[in-house]
Amino acid sequence: MLRTHTCGELRIGDVGQEVTLSGWVQRVRNKGGLVWVDLRDRYGVTQLIFEEGSSDPALLEKAASLGREFVIQASGEVIERTSKNKKIPTGEIELKAAKLDVLNAAKVPPFVIEDETDGGEELRMKYRYLDLRRAVVREKLQLRHRMMQETRKFMDKLDFMEVETPVLIKSTPEGARDFLVPSRINQGEFYALPQSPQTFKQLLMVSGFDRYFQIVKCFRDEDLRADRQPEFTQIDCEMSFVDQEDILSTFEGLIKHLFANVKKVELPEVERMTFADAMKYYGNDKPDLRFDMKFVELNELSQNKGFKIFDDAELVAGICAPGAAAYTRKQIDAITEWVKRPQVGAKGLVYVKYNEDGSLKSSVDKFYSQEDLKSWAEAMNANPGDLLLILSGDTNATRKQLSELRLKMGSDLGLRDKNTFKPLWVLDFPLLEWDEESGRFHAMHHPFTSPKSEDFALLETDPGAVRANAYDLVINGVEIGGGSIRIHDRDTQKTMFKHLGFTDEDAQAQFGFLMEAFEYGAPPHGGIAFGFDRLCAIFGGSDSIRDYIAFPKNNSGRDVMIDSPSAISEDQLQELSIQLALKK
Amino acid sequence: MLRTHTCGELRIGDVGQEVTLSGWVQRVRNKGGLVWVDLRDRYGVTQLIFEEGSSDPALLEKAASLGREFVIQASGEVIERTSKNKKIPTGEIELKAAKLDVLNAAKVPPFVIEDETDGGEELRMKYRYLDLRRAVVREKLQLRHRMMQETRKFMDKLDFMEVETPVLIKSTPEGARDFLVPSRINQGEFYALPQSPQTFKQLLMVSGFDRYFQIVKCFRDEDLRADRQPEFTQIDCEMSFVDQEDILSTFEGLIKHLFANVKKVELPEVERMTFADAMKYYGNDKPDLRFDMKFVELNELSQNKGFKIFDDAELVAGICAPGAAAYTRKQIDAITEWVKRPQVGAKGLVYVKYNEDGSLKSSVDKFYSQEDLKSWAEAMNANPGDLLLILSGDTNATRKQLSELRLKMGSDLGLRDKNTFKPLWVLDFPLLEWDEESGRFHAMHHPFTSPKSEDFALLETDPGAVRANAYDLVINGVEIGGGSIRIHDRDTQKTMFKHLGFTDEDAQAQFGFLMEAFEYGAPPHGGIAFGFDRLCAIFGGSDSIRDYIAFPKNNSGRDVMIDSPSAISEDQLQELSIQLALKK
Repeated sequence: MLRTHTCGELRIGDVGQEVTLSGWVQRVRNKGGLVWVDLRDRYGVTQLIFEEGSSDPALLEKAASLGREFVIQASGEVIERTSKNKKIPTGEIELKAAKLDVLNAAKVPPFVIEDETDGGEELRMKYRYLDLRRAVVREKLQLRHRMMQETRKFMDKLDFMEVETPVLIKSTPEGARDFLVPSRINQGEFYALPQSPQTFKQLLMVSGFDRYFQIVKCFRDEDLRADRQPEFTQIDCEMSFVDQEDILSTFEGLIKHLFANVKKVELPEVERMTFADAMKYYGNDKPDLRFDMKFVELNELSQNKGFKIFDDAELVAGICAPGAAAYTRKQIDAITEWVKRPQVGAKGLVYVKYNEDGSLKSSVDKFYSQEDLKSWAEAMNANPGDLLLILSGDTNATRKQLSELRLKMGSDLGLRDKNTFKPLWVLDFPLLEWDEESGRFHAMHHPFTSPKSEDFALLETDPGAVRANAYDLVINGVEIGGGSIRIHDRDTQKTMFKHLGFTDEDAQAQFGFLMEAFEYGAPPHGGIAFGFDRLCAIFGGSDSIRDYIAFPKNNSGRDVMIDSPSAISEDQLQELSIQLALKK
Repeated sequence: MLRTHTCGELRIGDVGQEVTLSGWVQRVRNKGGLVWVDLRDRYGVTQLIFEEGSSDPALLEKAASLGREFVIQASGEVIERTSKNKKIPTGEIELKAAKLDVLNAAKVPPFVIEDETDGGEELRMKYRYLDLRRAVVREKLQLRHRMMQETRKFMDKLDFMEVETPVLIKSTPEGARDFLVPSRINQGEFYALPQSPQTFKQLLMVSGFDRYFQIVKCFRDEDLRADRQPEFTQIDCEMSFVDQEDILSTFEGLIKHLFANVKKVELPEVERMTFADAMKYYGNDKPDLRFDMKFVELNELSQNKGFKIFDDAELVAGICAPGAAAYTRKQIDAITEWVKRPQVGAKGLVYVKYNEDGSLKSSVDKFYSQEDLKSWAEAMNANPGDLLLILSGDTNATRKQLSELRLKMGSDLGLRDKNTFKPLWVLDFPLLEWDEESGRFHAMHHPFTSPKSEDFALLETDPGAVRANAYDLVINGVEIGGGSIRIHDRDTQKTMFKHLGFTDEDAQAQFGFLMEAFEYGAPPHGGIAFGFDRLCAIFGGSDSIRDYIAFPKNNSGRDVMIDSPSAISEDQLQELSIQLALKK
């Protein structure tokens, strides 16, 4: 037996017991004929003590020569510590070691295995197995484990069936780029890895499975950005005989369950907002509601007073930064520079300081009277001491810029606390969005999303105005899930494909099986999918999903630890009936 | 709201309630001014009744015209049935429908949606979503769901962490053929889909995760046999600081938990047998222990009596078929023919009937006296009424043939009851097996399996004789899981690769990351993986894993429902920097 207890288990009540522990050497101290070893495993740290005189000298020497991260096994008696460490649960005892075996030696690790490490990201990724040894990293994966178990518990209780859908499926050009897998047996043909199990879960509804879920890997061959991974995990769900309200309440339940059971946080009521309002008031379809600073449109109050920039603008809108009137000139200049950065792209910023004495001072005093400025302050519910920040220009661009500015001010003013959670349903998304590049409409959610019945006629006359039965769950400005009520009849699905620019032949070749399924008694159904990596990151209070993935890939899609992807042999290529055609 | 209750929910206590149900039309009966509709969903069947006079005539007509598999919604009052159906839980009530809506019409399905169907396998696979509508099929997936949830419950309770390992990994030539995924970003390089998460779970042990599990999709690009799927699911597990005994007892616990909680069956003690004994006594490394018929070797008692076939044989061995002495000549001839089929390959069969009167009658009476035959019967613990069946030849071939014969006789004699479960650990597998084709040793389990320390020296002198710390869990003649204590130091791993014919460079290129990891403090560790599809099949009493997979592929690796794999566009090929090189 390699251990009788873990390194996190022994307590004062165990004093006198003969035990065996195994683990990693965290630290060795050697002083005045005594050697202490901090022995670590996943469960905790226990101190071993080797004493000159009472321990065998060879044993003492062996202990003193242990290196960091050696894997050892030690046996002896649990004794009470003379100087107790109240910071750790095992801190009242130590193991007086009578036997010590080195199970495996260790080279000096390339970076320090402590919560604070000296290893850069690349080095830690190459030695990810050592990075994962750090408690702060392992705890992120433990959170993820907990989230998975609690999700399943909740879904199982509600009669959702977990069904594994296939990973080797069929390529479809709609959506992002597929990863492809050449078939050896079916020469010249390819499987694709799923971007989501969308069509399969809909077929399960046609099968009468009624309630389906799966925690499932999905794949997108996209150019990678900082927070994207080519493989990611979804909580994927679908329900039959439901309307939007049923879905919202079911999955509010899931999120509340997770917060209550994993984070011990009681989540507030989930607010609701239409997409149109989210854009109008927050310039963003995933507003961070931890703070207010709603947009106020000032066109009426600001135009036709001789300030050409506002007069020419489609939209003049501002936010009120509470208590920021005290900002110095330098601070305001910095904000002005910030909004002009290419990432934000505003041309300029107008500010109005609402001083504590009630006076108003702006960057456009030339054009506006104190009364004008006062009227803005009133429209924006500003109080003395607040700072108004105003942008103008094309509506969409201005909203986007003001949204960035709002988030920045929220951060600067300390209004985006990691331990406050403000969930929000964004509703009534547009069904379609215009894509300049391809010169056609794309499905905003996906081609299976149903239009609102009252907007259906608009599909022919004003497709961009059609609203969808689609919804996103947003927490703290992060979209953590989205879904829709689906189309469940062949005719509507055909119409939808037509509006997405599919020929009948293409629609049939790619999704014929689904449209045919709709003819054999498809129930009304809808669902949702949550980005599980992101959900874990939100729970862990982190911005990066990568921290919550055991073996992530870098921004070039490489696993630098195992050095993948990699070249394959000529034999393997031949077996797959393909050859390389490298571009310069 | 599309329904207030499911079709499996209403009881006599609900009489008088106004309810709304939704579901599929299972059957419509129309008689004497009454229309009954059996309405079905996942949860059950509820009878709707439409009555002439009391129902609106248009409603009655609408009900009468409903087709099978139409999706409808009906509202009305729950009433007590006059003639109750005690066979179904809702059989005491019916819904007196006042309102009926067709939510979706249905074409006539291509096969009957009942437990007994007229659809052939191919047709049912093409319309798998309709096949899954049949209760007998859906229940198999429900069993699978239950198995998953209970597995996780058990593992979580024992502090196993569920960790998702990557799907896009690196190709390694050891083992079966990999599915490959061309990388678009890293031109000319490929990912591989995992045959198992083996190296990743070992790295998690190096990380100190201590206890890992995952229910995970794995992939093998093999030529498909009847019961193989290119993608399959494993319960994958690994533990640190354990010896073989710890693993056996932990996973006996899992299997017993599953039997107790999913099947309500108390599993008997798991027997144990060495690989050598399994081969000697059952001719098979996965013996079916639901019945006895152990092999008895008869060389001593049968050779040198003038029967050349036995005299020339390396092995003469037999089984005793209880109560089969009454078999007719014709029946015995049929068995003789059966063992000569190419699938079995025996040259001939010797039988000895131990008649009820104590006399013995054999096919080799010319060569053996009654005393000789009696001595065989005694060696085989036969009783009057039993039939001895004896094969001879080369040891390995004879054992294999006799194993087939044993299983056949077990089936013929009704000794392989689906509701009896006999679990068995097979232990001490050989580390290596000789592969004639490649002229070298292969790892019997995989290259990471540790040799028994007492056999280590044999690696140089007699590699085939080295036993591994490897174990399989067998139930009723089916291997449902296997694992080993792993190598955890670089030197042993290097030696192992050498014996498997790897050059140092190859070993380094493919598994350098693992061998390097072993140098940074790798704990002793071991694990096991269960074939989850097969485990579900065993629980369901089925021989085919395909029944337990929602969307299986056929024997050519095709999904005939979605028609995959399929051709891809020239653009897609170009993006991936590959082109087709089709063979004739």
